[in-house]
Amino acid sequence: MNECALLHIMDSAYCFPTSEHDITIRLRCAKGDLREVYICYENKYVIADKQIKKPMVKTMESKIFDYYSISLHIEDPRIAYVFYLYDGEAYKYYSEEGLTDTYDYSIGFYNFFQYAYINKSDVISRVSWMNKARFYQIFVDRFNMGSDDKDKSYINLKWGDIPSSKSFAGGDLKGIRKKLDYIASLGVNALYLTPIFSSVSNHKYDIIDYYRIDEQFGTSQDLKDLVKACHEKGMKLVLDAVFNHCSNEMAQFKDVCEKGRKSPYYDWFIIKGDKPNPGRLNYEVFAHCEYMPKLNTSNPEVADFLVGVATHYINEYDIDGWRLDVSDEVSHDFWRKFRIAVKSAKSDAVIIGENWHDASSYLRGDQYDSIMNYGFTKCCLDYFARKTIHSEEMAYRLNELLCRNNDVVNDMMLNLFDSHDTHRFFSEVKENKDAFINALCLLYLFPGAPCIFYGTELMMKGGYDPDCRRCMDWDKAGKIYSSELYKILTLLSDIRDKYALRSSNVRIYDDDGLLVVRYRNEKEDITLALNNTSKAVDGALGTVKAGGRLIDINGRKIL
Amino acid sequence: MNECALLHIMDSAYCFPTSEHDITIRLRCAKGDLREVYICYENKYVIADKQIKKPMVKTMESKIFDYYSISLHIEDPRIAYVFYLYDGEAYKYYSEEGLTDTYDYSIGFYNFFQYAYINKSDVISRVSWMNKARFYQIFVDRFNMGSDDKDKSYINLKWGDIPSSKSFAGGDLKGIRKKLDYIASLGVNALYLTPIFSSVSNHKYDIIDYYRIDEQFGTSQDLKDLVKACHEKGMKLVLDAVFNHCSNEMAQFKDVCEKGRKSPYYDWFIIKGDKPNPGRLNYEVFAHCEYMPKLNTSNPEVADFLVGVATHYINEYDIDGWRLDVSDEVSHDFWRKFRIAVKSAKSDAVIIGENWHDASSYLRGDQYDSIMNYGFTKCCLDYFARKTIHSEEMAYRLNELLCRNNDVVNDMMLNLFDSHDTHRFFSEVKENKDAFINALCLLYLFPGAPCIFYGTELMMKGGYDPDCRRCMDWDKAGKIYSSELYKILTLLSDIRDKYALRSSNVRIYDDDGLLVVRYRNEKEDITLALNNTSKAVDGALGTVKAGGRLIDINGRKIL
Repeated sequence: MNECALLHIMDSAYCFPTSEHDITIRLRCAKGDLREVYICYENKYVIADKQIKKPMVKTMESKIFDYYSISLHIEDPRIAYVFYLYDGEAYKYYSEEGLTDTYDYSIGFYNFFQYAYINKSDVISRVSWMNKARFYQIFVDRFNMGSDDKDKSYINLKWGDIPSSKSFAGGDLKGIRKKLDYIASLGVNALYLTPIFSSVSNHKYDIIDYYRIDEQFGTSQDLKDLVKACHEKGMKLVLDAVFNHCSNEMAQFKDVCEKGRKSPYYDWFIIKGDKPNPGRLNYEVFAHCEYMPKLNTSNPEVADFLVGVATHYINEYDIDGWRLDVSDEVSHDFWRKFRIAVKSAKSDAVIIGENWHDASSYLRGDQYDSIMNYGFTKCCLDYFARKTIHSEEMAYRLNELLCRNNDVVNDMMLNLFDSHDTHRFFSEVKENKDAFINALCLLYLFPGAPCIFYGTELMMKGGYDPDCRRCMDWDKAGKIYSSELYKILTLLSDIRDKYALRSSNVRIYDDDGLLVVRYRNEKEDITLALNNTSKAVDGALGTVKAGGRLIDINGRKIL
Repeated sequence: MNECALLHIMDSAYCFPTSEHDITIRLRCAKGDLREVYICYENKYVIADKQIKKPMVKTMESKIFDYYSISLHIEDPRIAYVFYLYDGEAYKYYSEEGLTDTYDYSIGFYNFFQYAYINKSDVISRVSWMNKARFYQIFVDRFNMGSDDKDKSYINLKWGDIPSSKSFAGGDLKGIRKKLDYIASLGVNALYLTPIFSSVSNHKYDIIDYYRIDEQFGTSQDLKDLVKACHEKGMKLVLDAVFNHCSNEMAQFKDVCEKGRKSPYYDWFIIKGDKPNPGRLNYEVFAHCEYMPKLNTSNPEVADFLVGVATHYINEYDIDGWRLDVSDEVSHDFWRKFRIAVKSAKSDAVIIGENWHDASSYLRGDQYDSIMNYGFTKCCLDYFARKTIHSEEMAYRLNELLCRNNDVVNDMMLNLFDSHDTHRFFSEVKENKDAFINALCLLYLFPGAPCIFYGTELMMKGGYDPDCRRCMDWDKAGKIYSSELYKILTLLSDIRDKYALRSSNVRIYDDDGLLVVRYRNEKEDITLALNNTSKAVDGALGTVKAGGRLIDINGRKIL
């Protein structure tokens, strides 16, 4: 038995409650190493005397590991357990002390695994609407101009021209509101807007005043109108919380630049010396941008200020959540305070971090609900665009992503294949329409919530920032309704709307060269099969042409 | 290369900051698999262009794993890194995507490891006095009676007779205060008392009124006097917080028993049905004890009440911390609130959980500082008492314990070989004095804070509860000053007092049959070598007789 490969971590993605009486337990082992895997469990105050033994099922597979899983309904919320394993040669027990030939339950209180007690407040809560959400990300300046009467003197880009990093095209909140019917027609039911607060840049990730809507984008009333219009269409609205840093023109930073240590805001920033000196960069900033000083969220005053901003837009504008910019560089401590305040203001508001890496330390129920799933993006790049991996490895990698977090979190992930911070995915696949559509199918049918960047429906092209932030092509948009992509997009949205695609039910695997994502429970059987190769492939559900795809719902091929 | 064995988890015991500019990184691999281990790192916004490469050192070894480690001082608190490994055959990179032959730093932002930013509020703070603390645990009813004038009608055990679970012997707070000189003479500088609040039992783990000192134990003034006397001797006092459950005689529970759902306290407990019914046990309790109803800490009112208790005894009595009874069955959510309140009241108060298992999910800096280290107890039982493991495996097991948590937490662990909840360790070693003294040496020189149960200094005997809770033998105690045990105990205390025995410096290994614990830095070299066998053993520092021990400080044998 390959003991080195065994992994089980209590109170983690390997052992998590899904209700006060339901718990899921996972065990990792070396690929192909085990033939039988059992869990032996009971109430922790009883297990010395008797145990229930149940087989666990292999639900996921990676390049080198198998993952076994079981979901248990337990009346008594205090579970103790050990694993009982067979590799074809010997049966062994696996406990906190590793592999042993025998296991002495009478002193198990020293070394069994356990979930000591499922307390209600520790069960990670689902944001009810996230699993059926289809997000549309809008870079506001480039989407649509709706205000004819505003001061347009700042606009320096002719709509449709290629933008530079200093371009202003005129998009605004009213423009978004005017296009809600269009957006809804794509099957979208949630918007995520890049920042809208006052700022000198076009992206507005350097905020001067968190309590003002940027004049280029509109007014407070415009935001209220937009939220109201969204809600009337059953659409959610999520804003971008840039709390890691601000603009060097924010009043508090300017006060420190002027007064140095005598400013009451000196500790709002992290400064070496008496005053910020942009030339010497003697203060903490985002990346190396001297105009984006980092906010010191370890200072309770700053934390209170930012939490106040977060709840203000929920209480006064009724927004439905926050996407958190550069959230991995902000303290856990701050996100805990943030979550408590946000969920108190609106229990169903969603909190989506921007962490490009394994974010499990932020996703334990005390900080975010979700992250922008750039791990998924990387898989899509390697498989659909660079083609450095085949279906088999793609399945392994996707399974590994699902093993990073528990099923509740997986069901709330914001999945994306591009954004304002990457190349456009259509350019990444070198404008290969089949590869693009296949990726879109995966995006929509992977556990979590799909998020498409504005213009995805038009197969918009673009390289890295600022090229990925081109103006929306409204002429083209007006003609999409007969396109194949539109039909597939709305079909995919309908599937998400109709079915609960749960991480706990999914199996992802290679079927002779096809990448298969399958959800099966007592009632439903939904399969996606993608052919990422240049030859037709015969799969279990039939032949899929080169570069093609197949969706089967309850035995009926609908694509 | 054995990829299955590789383990690195970001933002965990495998990657933790020790200051705003210091970080420790660990990597696990299969035993003997790697010949060279490097970390390649830089500021995350620079690593695409250049990397610093440093060798990591093998610091710990278990039965099947090697653990490599490095502590880095980083000016920029945003570190990205990958590992570069050589197994004698090939060099490979190890990143979030596993082992690869090459590594493309230009897209590393998708899959490097990172600690995104060391925020001050996320650096786990040390309780300044814990690393030099020597604890003495007192079961109050059995230690010493100091009040001659109290109502003694409840006393039903003649001092010195063997107790039953219903015995009351008369020990109290005044009795402890009268013995502080004795306790201090043992080298002790911290007390942990089992519960002292009003209760009908001798152990008082079923509390009726959290705001009243039990009359058997004394008055509010007695507690104030005890704390004051302790502090005058430089001694800390830690009380027992029984917040998982209370007594069925607590007013709030009685109100629910009377009024059912109409009681304002109905949601203070977890009840199925209208009223608690002890016969049907239709409410949650500790273990199966109908007289210990579980408190519903998921109810904010209950959380506020208990947090109020915790801060009351800090603010009004100046106690130095709390040991948390059955803390693993109480919600994370509650302990987070508890920590914030306790640390606000007294930043250097210690919080010690009672978790018998891996408690890393409670020890991330947001909940406890420490736990009662029963994992260490189990190692001592297996090695010194049951002798089921030899020095080599003992070293492996101790190393594994240290790998569960980061070094900051390891340095605050409350290490113990027995308590009011176990057999007395002297009975466990079948009264073998050599084994007992050896275990005591390990207890005192293991990273963390040693805690001895009252009477350990007298080699008190006893089986499981209530036998481990016998009356202190004051006749014997008066004569201990010439004993070998006393000399060793005070010597060990002196070493702890004089030297900072840090988890980050320790190496634990087998030396030809001796168990060696060695701390070495630029200034100091402290070694403990234990012979747990029945033959003399020649070790690197000389011969150690059968069952004997050796302590060497900077080349001088002091034991």
